[in-house]
Amino acid sequence: MSEKQQTSSIGGSERTRPRVVIVGAGFGGLSAARGLRRAELDVTIIDRQNHHLFQPLLYQVATAAVSPADVAVPVRSLFRGDRNIRVLMDEVIDVDVEGRVVLSRSGRYKYDYLVLATGSEYTYFGQNRWRAHSVSLKTLEDALIMRERILLAFERAEMEADEAERRRLMRFVIIGGGPTGVELAGAIAELAKSTLVRDFRHIVPGETEIILLEAGPSLLSEFPQRLTDFAQRALERKGVTVRLETPVKDIRDDGVVAGRGDALIRAATVLWAGGTKAGVVSDWLGAEADRAGRVKIGADLSVPGHPEIFVIGDAARCAPPGEAPLPGVAPVAKQQGVYVAKTIRQRAAGGLSSEPFSYRDEGMLATIGRGAAVANLRWIKLTGWIAWMFWGLVHIYFLIGFRTRMMVFLNWVWAYFTYGLGARLITGRQTTQRPDPPSDSRDS
Amino acid sequence: MSEKQQTSSIGGSERTRPRVVIVGAGFGGLSAARGLRRAELDVTIIDRQNHHLFQPLLYQVATAAVSPADVAVPVRSLFRGDRNIRVLMDEVIDVDVEGRVVLSRSGRYKYDYLVLATGSEYTYFGQNRWRAHSVSLKTLEDALIMRERILLAFERAEMEADEAERRRLMRFVIIGGGPTGVELAGAIAELAKSTLVRDFRHIVPGETEIILLEAGPSLLSEFPQRLTDFAQRALERKGVTVRLETPVKDIRDDGVVAGRGDALIRAATVLWAGGTKAGVVSDWLGAEADRAGRVKIGADLSVPGHPEIFVIGDAARCAPPGEAPLPGVAPVAKQQGVYVAKTIRQRAAGGLSSEPFSYRDEGMLATIGRGAAVANLRWIKLTGWIAWMFWGLVHIYFLIGFRTRMMVFLNWVWAYFTYGLGARLITGRQTTQRPDPPSDSRDS
Repeated sequence: MSEKQQTSSIGGSERTRPRVVIVGAGFGGLSAARGLRRAELDVTIIDRQNHHLFQPLLYQVATAAVSPADVAVPVRSLFRGDRNIRVLMDEVIDVDVEGRVVLSRSGRYKYDYLVLATGSEYTYFGQNRWRAHSVSLKTLEDALIMRERILLAFERAEMEADEAERRRLMRFVIIGGGPTGVELAGAIAELAKSTLVRDFRHIVPGETEIILLEAGPSLLSEFPQRLTDFAQRALERKGVTVRLETPVKDIRDDGVVAGRGDALIRAATVLWAGGTKAGVVSDWLGAEADRAGRVKIGADLSVPGHPEIFVIGDAARCAPPGEAPLPGVAPVAKQQGVYVAKTIRQRAAGGLSSEPFSYRDEGMLATIGRGAAVANLRWIKLTGWIAWMFWGLVHIYFLIGFRTRMMVFLNWVWAYFTYGLGARLITGRQTTQRPDPPSDSRDS
Repeated sequence: MSEKQQTSSIGGSERTRPRVVIVGAGFGGLSAARGLRRAELDVTIIDRQNHHLFQPLLYQVATAAVSPADVAVPVRSLFRGDRNIRVLMDEVIDVDVEGRVVLSRSGRYKYDYLVLATGSEYTYFGQNRWRAHSVSLKTLEDALIMRERILLAFERAEMEADEAERRRLMRFVIIGGGPTGVELAGAIAELAKSTLVRDFRHIVPGETEIILLEAGPSLLSEFPQRLTDFAQRALERKGVTVRLETPVKDIRDDGVVAGRGDALIRAATVLWAGGTKAGVVSDWLGAEADRAGRVKIGADLSVPGHPEIFVIGDAARCAPPGEAPLPGVAPVAKQQGVYVAKTIRQRAAGGLSSEPFSYRDEGMLATIGRGAAVANLRWIKLTGWIAWMFWGLVHIYFLIGFRTRMMVFLNWVWAYFTYGLGARLITGRQTTQRPDPPSDSRDS
């Protein structure tokens, strides 16, 4: 495809309007695009997926509490009414910084301003073999694969005559004690001990073993000690075995090697919620990155030497002078998107640059399951029920689109009172033949 | 796995209870299992999937109107409270008729009574190559693949600079003018012309071409002429091109060869709703079958010479004396399931056989889209709005499980008033790399 499409742009006649290309439709990219609505700019959003994903609830898809459609929304539909914004499902493969062109699998997109909001991916600390023996949780496909693996483990255990193998099938190891690991551990414990418990005849789902491994000295390391202690106790009450200071040495076909003495934990299902790193953005730009691959950006979130290129969200290392880099969480990406949109509007209007970006920290939340969460807010720390209610309200509030919000709310209310079916379907395509999804398909 | 599991059966002590194995958890199998609730029998349901599928609404998953969880329910959850019924996710590969054993991928299951309710699959009239160039609609995976293909066609058209290729991407050919073909054609027309119309910038979804090919002289051949005429006009009003007496000669990479002069209809997306045939049940049993592979059964639905083996639903050819065989629709399968359960109960209690099976025909329904359907009921024929309302009520009523019913209803109400998002997500695993799902994975 040529650049024809690019120049036959929106509106037809106004070809002199500055062009903004936004790569990535996560929290950062969407927030930037929203900020450019009805501006005198032609905006193109490019994402590999056709949907924005509400990642904080992705673990609920993986644990069969909600459906994919409850946590995702087609990007197109969010900008229906905005004639200056177009959405493309395409995969960016490089940036020609000098020529100001984004190169994708199907075309070339010229830009005057570029916003890179490409997020992060899981890293296996150089052990790419581990990827084949575990499942992670970044995309909807990941979540559906994880759900399939979890539910199939129970189905197989139900048919398994060998005692040791049955126990292996009912043992789940979760690696990484951050918010995702904690949420997954809590949700699987509930799935096994409440929802599935009456469904089987041969096995007792309540005997499921869930082991959460964390290399560091505490869970949820970004939270204060009191809250992490609460989270650990809450998980243990749900029957999760929490093992701190237990770095993983190896992930194999039959289980995980971890901890002192390099013991093998035999387990059929290993969920990876370990470290993340930024993708290949720094390679595209030839820009300086930190060890986690995050591009080092200036006070206005642009790449040094390129005031027309902004990197935001998990892909960026944004460190206010003398402070630690901002964490890779949704509120940071969103506020950066708002800031960048405002900056681009100002510059396109001929104005000079504004104040440097500053992050307003509203606090952090993590949930452990039914009726338990921790909230570290600016003005108060909450635990237990009240934190959980707060968590639910905040997440429903931020869910994109009213329909989604309403449906998730009804699903939750229903599931809460019934410990109900949720979305407990196995829809894997290669279920029977290939229990292990090929690792390459997970990278797509 | 050995037969250990089989003998360590439910209840532990009551090993002398007759064993019933039901293969298939569709309408027929479920209805038989329900009829055996709390009977003095040990019942095992075996299905390749973990869920029962409400197939009449599967086309709505394929056309992004509802989510998979709205039309499917885990089989296990339906029999939670029934201690004499167990559910296994397993694939049956043969039956040892003399030894009275069902052979599966993971084990052997002895039976005293066997109910085969394995349904039907699509047949490509010996042209298995066609399967690779089209998508069909039997399982949830099929529906998700179909949805992915339909939505991706629009996404690709949006990025396509070549005019002819863009038109090919926006041309959809549906093969088969039965209920599934008609429903798909209507639903895609609405998706393109109402839902997607504001989402794109480069293409005009309203220019989508939908071509429905039927080899016979009318659509919905099981309905009376007045209703099929109505259905055709309703489709045409929605912009669908209906071509009757147009048998397909070939399905190729670039489109479909059909009709007089063997013209090539260039189209990127070909949906197969052609003929179906029963699976391999007759091979398992060494029993006589008709040309469509359906096992010929007696008046009590058992296989001649094997009063302990019943075949029901689409897998059976059930022809009352002097009449045409019953059609492959849900009500037939359900009524047969009820009958078989009653017969097994009676025989297990030492009674002799009952009256022959007789089908009570309540009529047929087919929908063409928003506000249009046809209903051929015993006492009245309906078309248009009123038929559509009736269709909606009936389908919601029969949807399994209250939650599902409520959610689908809310989804529909919401979608009706907003032409809303529905479930318009592309969640294919191999999206970018492999636009054509491998045909072997669809067979699993």
